[in-house]
Amino acid sequence: METTTDIASDFLYLRIAKNFEDQILKNVLRIGDKLPSLRSICRQYEVSQTTAMQAYYHLESKSLIESRPQSGYYVSNSPKRFPMVPQTSKPGHLDNNNLEDIITTVHNHRQENSKIINLSLSAPAPELLPLAKLNKSMINAMRQLPANGTSYEHVQGSERLRRQIARWSHNMEAGLTDGDIVTTAGCINAVAYALTALTQPGDSIIVESPVYFGILRMAKSVGLRVIELPTNPQTGIELEAVKKTLETHKIKLCILVSNFSNPLGSCMPEEHKREMVNLIQKHNIPLIEDDLYGDVYFGANRPKSCKTFDQSGLVLWCGSVSKTLAPGYRVGWIAPGQFKDLVIKQKLYNTVSSATLTQEAVAGFLETGRYENHLRKLRQALHGNSLKFSRAISDYFPESTKVSRPQGGFVLWVEMDKRINTLDLYEKAIRNNISIAPGLMFTLQKQFTNCIRLSFGITWNEEVERSLKILGAIAKSYLPSGA
Amino acid sequence: METTTDIASDFLYLRIAKNFEDQILKNVLRIGDKLPSLRSICRQYEVSQTTAMQAYYHLESKSLIESRPQSGYYVSNSPKRFPMVPQTSKPGHLDNNNLEDIITTVHNHRQENSKIINLSLSAPAPELLPLAKLNKSMINAMRQLPANGTSYEHVQGSERLRRQIARWSHNMEAGLTDGDIVTTAGCINAVAYALTALTQPGDSIIVESPVYFGILRMAKSVGLRVIELPTNPQTGIELEAVKKTLETHKIKLCILVSNFSNPLGSCMPEEHKREMVNLIQKHNIPLIEDDLYGDVYFGANRPKSCKTFDQSGLVLWCGSVSKTLAPGYRVGWIAPGQFKDLVIKQKLYNTVSSATLTQEAVAGFLETGRYENHLRKLRQALHGNSLKFSRAISDYFPESTKVSRPQGGFVLWVEMDKRINTLDLYEKAIRNNISIAPGLMFTLQKQFTNCIRLSFGITWNEEVERSLKILGAIAKSYLPSGA
Repeated sequence: METTTDIASDFLYLRIAKNFEDQILKNVLRIGDKLPSLRSICRQYEVSQTTAMQAYYHLESKSLIESRPQSGYYVSNSPKRFPMVPQTSKPGHLDNNNLEDIITTVHNHRQENSKIINLSLSAPAPELLPLAKLNKSMINAMRQLPANGTSYEHVQGSERLRRQIARWSHNMEAGLTDGDIVTTAGCINAVAYALTALTQPGDSIIVESPVYFGILRMAKSVGLRVIELPTNPQTGIELEAVKKTLETHKIKLCILVSNFSNPLGSCMPEEHKREMVNLIQKHNIPLIEDDLYGDVYFGANRPKSCKTFDQSGLVLWCGSVSKTLAPGYRVGWIAPGQFKDLVIKQKLYNTVSSATLTQEAVAGFLETGRYENHLRKLRQALHGNSLKFSRAISDYFPESTKVSRPQGGFVLWVEMDKRINTLDLYEKAIRNNISIAPGLMFTLQKQFTNCIRLSFGITWNEEVERSLKILGAIAKSYLPSGA
Repeated sequence: METTTDIASDFLYLRIAKNFEDQILKNVLRIGDKLPSLRSICRQYEVSQTTAMQAYYHLESKSLIESRPQSGYYVSNSPKRFPMVPQTSKPGHLDNNNLEDIITTVHNHRQENSKIINLSLSAPAPELLPLAKLNKSMINAMRQLPANGTSYEHVQGSERLRRQIARWSHNMEAGLTDGDIVTTAGCINAVAYALTALTQPGDSIIVESPVYFGILRMAKSVGLRVIELPTNPQTGIELEAVKKTLETHKIKLCILVSNFSNPLGSCMPEEHKREMVNLIQKHNIPLIEDDLYGDVYFGANRPKSCKTFDQSGLVLWCGSVSKTLAPGYRVGWIAPGQFKDLVIKQKLYNTVSSATLTQEAVAGFLETGRYENHLRKLRQALHGNSLKFSRAISDYFPESTKVSRPQGGFVLWVEMDKRINTLDLYEKAIRNNISIAPGLMFTLQKQFTNCIRLSFGITWNEEVERSLKILGAIAKSYLPSGA
């Protein structure tokens, strides 16, 4: 039923949650029943309020319980109705030669047709963004900057923005200062600088599997060998696999989306992050940590990052506001640790400096309390969406369908019956004006042909629900008697 | 006296100008004498008004004549007082191992000290930019764009901006359409995408000598072999040298700043451009044409580009508004010819899309007549500055000093007595709060140690004149009895 059993013993909040989950499974607690207050959980288990909340958030994210304002937590769902989580991936050996074609097809379809229901873009819809306040920040930036922001900026990037990024990163306790940070044109641009600064054609790198296609195609374009490792939809890359690969292969570096990975939605537990950093330190290998979803958590606190545990400066921590504020501003950053000079050179050579105005507008926005307010709303909306999507999949998709249970981010990973070819399903969906991301987009190997990624970063409405219903019906059509 | 004699016979306007230059040289025409009206030139030589104007612009740019409003043209200067133009460069074989250090030193000095007189940055001072109107364009862009410009844009870039770039490029008759153009984060970013899309480490490329240091360090960072070829301060790269190198070496591509090159200020005559394109077509080799100064001409018309004569799609034409509107906006472009798909992929992989707002603001500005108005003023200011700088050098620098006579752009190339070491001169200048660019910044070889580049893209005032006087005094201090 539940793949987290083996790690539950490591975490107090998971143990508490497991206790309630068992009661719900055994029908001791039934739909509609009220759960103990947070305060009584604290007393009963002798834990902090935070741990108690984490336990409830965990149950909530599994749609087992739900909170009602000014009232408390209630059992919301029978777990039997809820889809299972996919198993840890097992990358194979057959090549996926169509990656580039598939990505291009999905991109083009989406752009050619404005009527499309977009379930394939991992980004927030404009309705979820604080547009008016951002505009104000931009106008202020224009007024305040010397020469109205038309002059070249220092190559390391706006000092004001770097200070704000350092301030925000305190939530993950990495102890960064503005001097540690270099601004970039989005997070993928940060990853690109890191990758080109640190590798030569022919080098081997480690990634998760499935993994964001942008990382795959960039690695391929600079001639790298990509090793995809088994990854758990809840806890991220399998550390045993990392360990073994580092011992048996000559690896140049690792790239991980440590928090709410794309497309799995996995979040490495703190202990895994610490262990991962130990491993790279032991082998003296850099880790590019793509942490662009870290602020979009559904739990009580921002998860830590691998950078939090980095003593050696081997972790290059990358982020952006593309998933939380303004994709089109192209504002991202990197804290490159010991590789700072190399990364700055890459930036200098490729573009001299960042666009001054957009950075400054973001800095202005972060300086106020607006960002936290906005993030709170954004997280609530996305968490709600993830639950609604999961329920709709449970209602409309074939019974055997498994769905990831992300604790943050924008995407669900849906694994269906092996007989369902999602490239074919994609074609049928697009004819119904629904855009999804087929599983083959996230691997250089022949796998995930029965998987899709669904993005829930849009406003939930009847049209979205109808789209999921149509997707489910298409999926069922591949199975005998629509099972 | 004059190095253009050999090419003068090729160009009607140069022949007319030569005629007057001879008369001035022989004291037939003397300082203060009035020249024939443009109309009488047209009648006398049976040429168009444009050709007549070109002849006078040419003489004006050499400070031989000057125009007085509502009155006409007058002999302004004795050529004997005016510095000679440097000879064609002769790249040698000794390595310049300090390139990176020198660039970094110059950058850092400039940024550490706000009191510095900046004669080392090839960009327009804010006073020369239409800031208020640009701000309006930006605010309009924010209002008009869907989601206020926060959404990801099509990877090829703003259609509105691409249409405007195509429209403007009609001035050089290259027949480009919006579909031919890809937007980038500045011109160097365009060159970077072209270079990484088309080369592998170990490939050889051809460049001018001296050449913009940004091209050198980028080429080095991706592991290319750089072949610097002899370049004439008036007419650009020597075509004989190009021809010979293409015949004897395996060359992957060429990079040229065809119009008002940096640092020489040379402008390839139309015939040279045509011949250059013939050469690359014969050898089937791409040409990256860095044309970011083309709109800042001092003559009557925008010079054509190599792209104008490109039938095969081998020319990748790059430009930006960094030298004319807003360096800090990071808005540039490339028309990559037959390599469009490759360049688009580079952009997609490295940054997904451009910043939406700054592109749109520039598009809005270009749509009005404002850009042409602004350019006219900018050109006048820069042309005036170039003459004032030349005169000051003639007044204050050692007599043997040679200076380029750019027909556009932002920079003068100053060649001094061989005994003057400009790295040492740089150190002394910076102690006087004057920043210049030493010659060694523009080569991977041990040459130009007696040269400096001076940027005249600033507002001329007494402080600037005093700085040039100080520079001249420092230069004289290296010579016996301050010759």
